[in-house]
Amino acid sequence: MQSEILCVGSELLLGQIVDTNAAYIGTQLARYGISLRRKQTVGDNLERIVRAIRSALENADVLIITGGLGPTTDDLTREAIAKAFDEELELRPELESELREFFAGRNYKFSESNLRQAYQPQSAQHIPNPNGTAPGVWMRKNGKTVFAMPGVPHEMRAMLDGFIIPAIQEQRGETEILVSRVLRTHGIGESALAELVEDISLNSENPTVAPLIYQNTEVHLRMTAKASDEAAAKVLLDEMENRLRERVGDYAFGIDEQTLPAVLLDLLKEQNATLAVAESLTGGLLEASLTDIPGASAVLQGGVVVYTNEMKMRLLNVPAEVLEKHSAVSAETAIAMAEGMRALSNADYAISTTGEAGPESQSGAKVGTVFVGIAGSKSTFSEELQITGDRDRIRKRSVLAAINILRQHLNEPRQ
Amino acid sequence: MQSEILCVGSELLLGQIVDTNAAYIGTQLARYGISLRRKQTVGDNLERIVRAIRSALENADVLIITGGLGPTTDDLTREAIAKAFDEELELRPELESELREFFAGRNYKFSESNLRQAYQPQSAQHIPNPNGTAPGVWMRKNGKTVFAMPGVPHEMRAMLDGFIIPAIQEQRGETEILVSRVLRTHGIGESALAELVEDISLNSENPTVAPLIYQNTEVHLRMTAKASDEAAAKVLLDEMENRLRERVGDYAFGIDEQTLPAVLLDLLKEQNATLAVAESLTGGLLEASLTDIPGASAVLQGGVVVYTNEMKMRLLNVPAEVLEKHSAVSAETAIAMAEGMRALSNADYAISTTGEAGPESQSGAKVGTVFVGIAGSKSTFSEELQITGDRDRIRKRSVLAAINILRQHLNEPRQ
Repeated sequence: MQSEILCVGSELLLGQIVDTNAAYIGTQLARYGISLRRKQTVGDNLERIVRAIRSALENADVLIITGGLGPTTDDLTREAIAKAFDEELELRPELESELREFFAGRNYKFSESNLRQAYQPQSAQHIPNPNGTAPGVWMRKNGKTVFAMPGVPHEMRAMLDGFIIPAIQEQRGETEILVSRVLRTHGIGESALAELVEDISLNSENPTVAPLIYQNTEVHLRMTAKASDEAAAKVLLDEMENRLRERVGDYAFGIDEQTLPAVLLDLLKEQNATLAVAESLTGGLLEASLTDIPGASAVLQGGVVVYTNEMKMRLLNVPAEVLEKHSAVSAETAIAMAEGMRALSNADYAISTTGEAGPESQSGAKVGTVFVGIAGSKSTFSEELQITGDRDRIRKRSVLAAINILRQHLNEPRQ
Repeated sequence: MQSEILCVGSELLLGQIVDTNAAYIGTQLARYGISLRRKQTVGDNLERIVRAIRSALENADVLIITGGLGPTTDDLTREAIAKAFDEELELRPELESELREFFAGRNYKFSESNLRQAYQPQSAQHIPNPNGTAPGVWMRKNGKTVFAMPGVPHEMRAMLDGFIIPAIQEQRGETEILVSRVLRTHGIGESALAELVEDISLNSENPTVAPLIYQNTEVHLRMTAKASDEAAAKVLLDEMENRLRERVGDYAFGIDEQTLPAVLLDLLKEQNATLAVAESLTGGLLEASLTDIPGASAVLQGGVVVYTNEMKMRLLNVPAEVLEKHSAVSAETAIAMAEGMRALSNADYAISTTGEAGPESQSGAKVGTVFVGIAGSKSTFSEELQITGDRDRIRKRSVLAAINILRQHLNEPRQ
C-alpha cells in the first residue's frame, strides 16, 4: 500500500505557520509500516488542490489530506475531492442537524456559511469529528481511498488515530493495533544504552524496542506492541517496561510524558521532603524548570541566584576562604552553596549549581566545567560535569543533570 | 513567474524533523511577490525525486529544491536534476580542488564519497556555499530554472538570500533589492498600533510598513525598503524607523534581534547601574531570561525566588503585617519584595513579581492577577497586570511585562 499526504492552506505554503500536522501523520504512517511516497502542500485554490489530488492518486493508493474543511469560502477541500472524482457535493441532512444542534447547544449564531460543513461528495462517507464542527471526508472509488481531515492539530490527531488508521488497517486486513510507550533515560548515551539492551531488542518482536535520542539530553527506549486491543497491548508493554527497567537501572526515570523535573517533585512529595535551589551559572533556569510544574510550590521553598562572589557570601554564607582558595567554580563552593541554601530555607534538600557557561570564561575555569552540590540531612556531596557546546546548551544540560543527580540520590536505598 | 518548492529527505517525509526551510523560502518568495504554487516533499529515492521535479516544472517556471546535496549515496538531488533534464553528471575540477582545500585546511580526511559534491549536471552552474562543503546547483534549460540548495538551514538561508533571490530578480528584470527591518513594540495591541501608524503605513510605498504579532507578546512593525543596494535601503529604513519611533513612543524597544531582556541589560550598562530580581509566581523565569544573555553577570547581581510567605519574610524582610493585611499577591508585597531585594543585594535597581499563575488559585487572588514591583534609588512603585491564559502564558507574559516596566522607567527623563 502506497500513500501520499496533501496539506491545504495558503498560510502553510507562505510559511506563516510551520506545518506540524504532516510530521505527525508521517510518523504515524511509518509506525504502521505504510509507505509514504510524497507530501504536497498547496494554497487555497480549487484548481491547484484538484491537480494535487489527481497527481497524488496517480502514484498512491491512499491519500490523506489536512486542511480546507472550515466554513469559509476559502475552504475548498470538499469541492476539490468531488471535482477530482468528477462528482458533485450534496447536502447531508444528518450533518446539518448535528451542526445546528452544536451551535444551539453553545448559544452560537448559526450562519449560512456554516452549512458548507454539512456537504460531502456524492459517494463519500463523513468522518465524525469529536473535537470540532468540521466532519472529515472518506471516499473510496476506482481502487483509490481519500481521507480528509481538518487542519486544527488536535482535531486532526484524534481523527487520524481514532478513525483513519483503523480504517486503513481494516482495508489492509490487519485486525491488530499498535500501541507505543517510551521509557525515558538520562545520563547514558544512545550507543551505550543500545548496547545495554541489545539482546532484548534483538530478540523481542512484540513489543519491538528501539532507542531514540530526545532533545539531545535524553535517550528514549520506544516500545511498540501489536495486539488485538489496548488492554492486551498494555500487558505486553508493562512486562517489557519491567524488563527494560531492570536492565537499565537508575538511568530510567519515567515513561511517556513524565519529565525529569516532574519526576523529582513527585519523589520529594512522596518522601514528604522540601527543596530549595541555589544557582550560579544556571541563573534561574533550574528554579524555573521546577516551578514550571503546577503544584511545585508545595515542595519548593524557593531559591537564590548568586552570580557574584559577594552575593554568594552574603546570601549563602559561602566562606571567603573557600572562594579564594578553590574559586567560585569548585566542588567546595558548590557544597558551601548547597549547605548555605539549606540553612537559609530550612528545606530538607538543597541543590546548587556553579560553573562556567561561557562564551568566554569569567572564572578561569574551562567553559563547560560545572559543579552540582547536594545538601541533605544525611549527606552533602558534589559532582563535576564537563559539558560541551554553547552557553544555552551548557545551561540547559546543567539543569537536567542537577535534577537527575538529586533524583538518583533520593532513589538510593536508605541507610 | 510561477514557482514551486521541493524538499528532499526521508527524515522530513517521516516526520522525524519538522521542515522549517520551506516556511522560510515561502516567506521570502512572498516578500518578493513571486507566486508559489505548491510545495512537495519526497524521500531519498531517485525515481521519486525525478518525478517530483518533472511534476513541478509542468506548472512552474522556477523550482527551488532543498536537501539531498550531501556526500552520501543517500544524497540524490544532483543525480535527479540531471536525470529530469536527460543529462549526465560531470566532475567539475574547480569544485574538486575547492573541496580538497577545504578538507586539507581543517586537517579532515578527504574520502572519495566527498567527491560526489564536486559533480554537477552538464548544463548547470554551481552556486557557491560560503558556509559548508555542498555547492548548490543552478540550471536553466527549456525555459525552466531549477535551483538546489543544501538542507542545513543556515547554509540554505545564506544561499537563498545571497544568490538565488538576486538571480531570480535579475531574471525578472528587477534591478532592485528588498531589505527589511522590524521595529519591536511591547505593551500595545496589534489593532491599536495599526491605528496609531495608519497614516504612515497607508501613505508610504517605500518602505512599506505592516504590523505583525510576534509570539503573542509583541507587535512588530515590519518595514520593507526597495532600493538599488543595501546602503540605499539603509537610508530609507533609518528614516522610516525614526518616523515610527516618534509616533509609537516608548512602546518601541528595539529592532530586529534586540530582545526585551537584552535591551534592558544594555540600558542598565549604559547607566552604570546594577540589578537584582525577587520572584514569586515567575519562579526563576525572569532571572533566567536575563541570564540567558551573555555578559548578564556584569549587570545582574543575582536574585531570589520566594514562593512561601516564610521565605518572603526571612530573605527579603517583607513585614508579616503586610502579608497579613494585604496578602502575598498585592502591590504592597511587590514593593516590599523589591525593596528587600535591593537592600539584600546592594543593587541599584530591584524588580519583583508576585501573583497568581494558577491553574488553581493558591492565594485567593484571581488567576492572572500579577503585581510587579520596582525599587530604585529615587522611587519605588508597583504596577498591576491582569493576564489571561494558562499558567505558562501568565508566567511568560509577567516576565516580559516586568522587564518592560523597568525599561520604561529607565527611559523616563531624569528629574
